[in-house]
Amino acid sequence: MKLDFDCVIVGAGIAGMTAAIYLKRSNVNVLILDNDAPGGLLNKISVIENYPGFISISGPDLAYKIYEQVTNLGIEIRYGKVISINNHQVITDLETITTKKVILAIGRKARKLENTNNLKNISYCALCDGNLYKNKVVALVGYNNSALEEALYLSDICQKVIILSRGEFLKGEETLIDKVEKRKNIEIQLNCVIKTLSSEKNILNKIITNKGEFLVDGMFIAIGYEPNTQFLKDIKKENDYIIVDKNMKTNIDYIFACGDIIKKDIYQLTTAVSEATIAAINVKKEL
Amino acid sequence: MKLDFDCVIVGAGIAGMTAAIYLKRSNVNVLILDNDAPGGLLNKISVIENYPGFISISGPDLAYKIYEQVTNLGIEIRYGKVISINNHQVITDLETITTKKVILAIGRKARKLENTNNLKNISYCALCDGNLYKNKVVALVGYNNSALEEALYLSDICQKVIILSRGEFLKGEETLIDKVEKRKNIEIQLNCVIKTLSSEKNILNKIITNKGEFLVDGMFIAIGYEPNTQFLKDIKKENDYIIVDKNMKTNIDYIFACGDIIKKDIYQLTTAVSEATIAAINVKKEL
Repeated sequence: MKLDFDCVIVGAGIAGMTAAIYLKRSNVNVLILDNDAPGGLLNKISVIENYPGFISISGPDLAYKIYEQVTNLGIEIRYGKVISINNHQVITDLETITTKKVILAIGRKARKLENTNNLKNISYCALCDGNLYKNKVVALVGYNNSALEEALYLSDICQKVIILSRGEFLKGEETLIDKVEKRKNIEIQLNCVIKTLSSEKNILNKIITNKGEFLVDGMFIAIGYEPNTQFLKDIKKENDYIIVDKNMKTNIDYIFACGDIIKKDIYQLTTAVSEATIAAINVKKEL
Repeated sequence: MKLDFDCVIVGAGIAGMTAAIYLKRSNVNVLILDNDAPGGLLNKISVIENYPGFISISGPDLAYKIYEQVTNLGIEIRYGKVISINNHQVITDLETITTKKVILAIGRKARKLENTNNLKNISYCALCDGNLYKNKVVALVGYNNSALEEALYLSDICQKVIILSRGEFLKGEETLIDKVEKRKNIEIQLNCVIKTLSSEKNILNKIITNKGEFLVDGMFIAIGYEPNTQFLKDIKKENDYIIVDKNMKTNIDYIFACGDIIKKDIYQLTTAVSEATIAAINVKKEL
């Protein structure tokens, strides 16, 4: 049976586009599928200063530069929402595509705090944006392990970190909670419900809660992520993240995955491009 | 005891500089040490077209862009050849530096073929430069596993690949040898000794050997790499490559490693920046 493609990549974020670049340069007949504009999560990032090669670049600008690489190589991108993947068939809302291999690079979305009105100094990534708040006061919304890690990270950079948590107590590893509680510049507010975000010229400056008002220079939100993998029925997952081996292969022989959708420790642009490279090279080896 | 630095990074290539960027942005007191200009192996690469963000960039240009990020953050770089690392002391030919953590990012060098006279169309990386020789004829010098992999890779892109090997037979995994021998567009020349490289305007066009003359559009060399880790006595290695765990930690508690110096499957810029990120984040966590 002649299949339409050697490899279909689902997701046109930085991981998907990087995998496509490696595969196309290896002369592999590759297609990228997405139901949104190329760039993925990049399109939601205002400033990137930790991706090697750019002192400072906006997410959409970096996305466009990588998209240019993709189009420059003549890689085909089709629009469509993938509904299911079965037996080498990728079924979208528009068509059915057959392929030898699949790379899943569908990313994840940060769970959003409601009613933040697109204020400029609200961030969903301490590692990305913490540096902008040197010696400043920031609030951190969240209470689980990753929120605690972000709080510790920020407390080394910022003058003060105020944790605003809806919970009765902090959740997470004992050692993390212990570290957070010992930090002199971390203030913990429990049972705390945000009522109003006060701002001037689209810059948040005061958070009004049931526990009082807090003057801040910025706010970080760490209330979790939503990996959208429900449509992938037979793939091994943990908390909706796809489990891969060191070659980025899933439990299904012809399906690989890379980027923010996989279960791993560190979710960065640098790690995504690496996983994409590894996935692409291993797909190529198996073709 | 007050130590001079939180972290000393040995090597100012893409891995070392990336680790430094992540650490400095986390407010870690970091130093980069190198005995050469910043950039490492990047400075030897003429064209890069598989690093996400740049359609085409020279290695030195990419090195300079990352170096700008480093200097922009105020990261200190000192020049010095590291002679030994012992008990949190990094000893160079110029000074002794004390540090809580060390990240080794010293890279490796491709073993060079002698007397190639800097001809422009000689490459040491099929994955990087293969794309330049679409439907063209290339020679590949080498005979081991990685040479065979490069030959297979090139044979999917090029019209013809001529393997020039000094050995009596191909060395490597049976399956790889089998695949190479079955490829119709791979010609294998054994017991083959190169006598003269014929060129015009600094472009190689003919290879004269004891087995005849070969007209080529380019030549790839895959005769191995030299990781320079002899000075690291107590660190666990395999064939001179440093062994790390998934957090990029070596067998010595305060020493991490990343980039081309570690034992791994894929040696690319994208994988190096990822390992550097992982090393930096784990160093930071432990400080």
